[in-house]
Amino acid sequence: MSSKKIINNTDNKKNKKIVIIGGVAAGTSAASKAKRVDPTAQITILQEEPLVSYGACGMPYVIEGLIDSFEKLIERPADDFKKQYDIDVIVNTRAEKIDPLQQKVYAISLKSHKRISLEYDSLVIATGARPFVPPIRGIRLDGVVFLRNYGDGKKIKALIAKGIDSVVIVGAGLIGLEMAESFKKNDIDSVTIVEMADHVLPNILDNDLAKIMQKHLQDKGVKLRLGEKLVEILEEGNRKVRGIKTTKGSIESDLVLVGTGVIPNSEIARDAGIELGYANAIRVDEHMRTSTSNIFAAGDCATAKSYVTGKDTYLPLGTTANKQGRVAGENAAGGNAIFRGIAGSAISKSFDLYFGKTGLSFDEALKEGFEPTEETIESITRSGYYPDSKPIWIKIISDKKSNGRVLGSQIIGGEGVKGRIDLIALALLLKANIVDLANYDSCYVPPISPVWEPVNIAASQAIKMISKSISLHR
Amino acid sequence: MSSKKIINNTDNKKNKKIVIIGGVAAGTSAASKAKRVDPTAQITILQEEPLVSYGACGMPYVIEGLIDSFEKLIERPADDFKKQYDIDVIVNTRAEKIDPLQQKVYAISLKSHKRISLEYDSLVIATGARPFVPPIRGIRLDGVVFLRNYGDGKKIKALIAKGIDSVVIVGAGLIGLEMAESFKKNDIDSVTIVEMADHVLPNILDNDLAKIMQKHLQDKGVKLRLGEKLVEILEEGNRKVRGIKTTKGSIESDLVLVGTGVIPNSEIARDAGIELGYANAIRVDEHMRTSTSNIFAAGDCATAKSYVTGKDTYLPLGTTANKQGRVAGENAAGGNAIFRGIAGSAISKSFDLYFGKTGLSFDEALKEGFEPTEETIESITRSGYYPDSKPIWIKIISDKKSNGRVLGSQIIGGEGVKGRIDLIALALLLKANIVDLANYDSCYVPPISPVWEPVNIAASQAIKMISKSISLHR
Repeated sequence: MSSKKIINNTDNKKNKKIVIIGGVAAGTSAASKAKRVDPTAQITILQEEPLVSYGACGMPYVIEGLIDSFEKLIERPADDFKKQYDIDVIVNTRAEKIDPLQQKVYAISLKSHKRISLEYDSLVIATGARPFVPPIRGIRLDGVVFLRNYGDGKKIKALIAKGIDSVVIVGAGLIGLEMAESFKKNDIDSVTIVEMADHVLPNILDNDLAKIMQKHLQDKGVKLRLGEKLVEILEEGNRKVRGIKTTKGSIESDLVLVGTGVIPNSEIARDAGIELGYANAIRVDEHMRTSTSNIFAAGDCATAKSYVTGKDTYLPLGTTANKQGRVAGENAAGGNAIFRGIAGSAISKSFDLYFGKTGLSFDEALKEGFEPTEETIESITRSGYYPDSKPIWIKIISDKKSNGRVLGSQIIGGEGVKGRIDLIALALLLKANIVDLANYDSCYVPPISPVWEPVNIAASQAIKMISKSISLHR
Repeated sequence: MSSKKIINNTDNKKNKKIVIIGGVAAGTSAASKAKRVDPTAQITILQEEPLVSYGACGMPYVIEGLIDSFEKLIERPADDFKKQYDIDVIVNTRAEKIDPLQQKVYAISLKSHKRISLEYDSLVIATGARPFVPPIRGIRLDGVVFLRNYGDGKKIKALIAKGIDSVVIVGAGLIGLEMAESFKKNDIDSVTIVEMADHVLPNILDNDLAKIMQKHLQDKGVKLRLGEKLVEILEEGNRKVRGIKTTKGSIESDLVLVGTGVIPNSEIARDAGIELGYANAIRVDEHMRTSTSNIFAAGDCATAKSYVTGKDTYLPLGTTANKQGRVAGENAAGGNAIFRGIAGSAISKSFDLYFGKTGLSFDEALKEGFEPTEETIESITRSGYYPDSKPIWIKIISDKKSNGRVLGSQIIGGEGVKGRIDLIALALLLKANIVDLANYDSCYVPPISPVWEPVNIAASQAIKMISKSISLHR
């Protein structure tokens, strides 16, 4: 099958040839959009994994057992791209080299080990990211797992099926907290999260809000070891994991999940002379164009500009990957789309609580030269008299210098977190201030909101605080 | 008790005297805020009902049986106002006349029939609204009910308890749809909604989205008679209701709930020479000041400026009442607060679907001189693979003339409606356009959102449509 595609790809001189390296979120979004913009384009996706277009964010829920198979995560089988959109997909094939002068990508089949090359007029790099692998002893032992791609998910599920009594999760980030729930729901007795920072979700929540999540995790039977760094993975013998050694002691476990962040798969770009940027991700402009004009990058391998600070950052998330992919695809096909940037919006759930962030934390705002102030309120998600009203905590960070411009927010709650994080993400895009957030016309019905909208309340409180501090300055 | 209050109210010459007529949402918000702004102020609430500060919006859920007593709706007993805030509350007392020259309010006790008068330095009128009573034969028969105040709620609950087999609801507005569910959940076999417009929720939804609600209501066993106007209430004999006669026929029923809108209790203001405005509500400026400078009005008796059109409108809702009340209270106490206006945000739920609106509909936008276009999408509320993903429909109305400025939205969905209506209400306040709505950094996690945020999708579709229409104009 793939040889035919390659012939098509090189033979026809009239039609634009677009090659996309990577076929998960950014890659498939780019391919679909490019085809819509230029239906005559010859589009080829090169994908290292055996499948494309799957919802990687759903893996914790499959492992938990809530979704009954990994196959359910597949949004579109590889064949569909050819049938429905006339997009060629070459799976099990790793791109090894880009030659920007010849405009060629060299790749190798992971099954036949055959080498192939593909010519392109435009190239989209959507190679994603890979787990950061701490350079410590024992990290490659059996029973040390990461959760990134489809294969990782299946491997963890299989290990659980064999029977596991204890798990250590290294890293209290999104994956760590999602998987803590997933493991507990598999009736694994001992689940311990080890985090080097002094609180969970260090990139999402400040210490004060993190404490709410910590209590919740502990209430659900998850053990926390904070301010404790992984030093070594311990071996039971026979290459099998026995536990971990940390800066403060050791923990026995049958399984170690390492969730200490990801790094961009940007080497193929760097080796082709393409500039890297923030966090060694591929530097892109607002058109998702790299330093080489007919090469675009999108998703977890690329930088993203913050629309709060105006600076490049790196925050590999599925939403951004899809949006960047679409822009890269449109422009690879000759369009002129713009990616407006990110606010750093992230949300997840652990057991019964949702938590999210958008924009800057207090400390991040300080570093960026703002004069931040923060206000946190606790409210409820329904009218007090309505059954199952849940608590919600909202922190709003705003800038004293610019009339209370909203800089960021952190929210934890039993429900209603997503809508409020999104609202503040829009406020950030529009450079709204806390007076705007205090006064927008929120809607209300007892089953899903209190009459005083919590965001309105938090912003009103923030106004009071800023007014006070301004009068103190006078 | 009340005589002592009156003496206090008139004796002390040093402290500001603030009288508030009305003690539900706007009145109690005004009182509390005034006390915080000026703790020395003597504040008196005059309330016609036997209690103050209750959540009127919760009544359908008490009648439904979801909340076990009306008492649960009482946010704060009248006594608490005195104990906690030193605010006097005089219940069961109707204000009859305002004398702006003497700065006095005259009232009558509904129990003792004693007349009293209260002096004021500032007055807040928060008299609310009352149901519109269609001027037709039979409207005062036994078994014809309205749902507005606490007493109405108790009366309906008592009638249901006696045993009712059939109900006709006249008016398919918020109350009508909430109560249809409430009646069905009381196992009332025959529940019929009669609406004179050609679709349900005529002030909230356009015909296309209303059809979704109509199907849902019918699926739940509610009968709909649309495009049919109430002509007469039929009598069984002995002053007891037998059903209704409409322009298209008649319907037998044991109970008739009339929910055909409300009218502001503004007569007491009008009679004092205070100007009325839109829909005969008391005209207020952004300080909630009436045409008489030391008299404020707030809540369901007052106008509200739309921050979309800049014009006065009348939309009596609890959220607005609370916000206006707070502004009126602050200013009555000598402050300088501003009410930024409303977008017309409203939300409710009927059975399993939430529905809401903010801003203008297509037709309203046309009338206001915009060149509107509308885009409706159907999406889902969770990742497709996540259990219990629910449908959501989003309509966005935007203006072709002003680069796609967002003018309004209508949303129906199984969940997540409130957050999205609120987000668009903020967009309206900030005069955002559809490019902003397509590009804000929405957050995503499978249990509560699809990776492509439905608002982002709807706005992206709207951009395509506007671009097309602009190129057609060229």
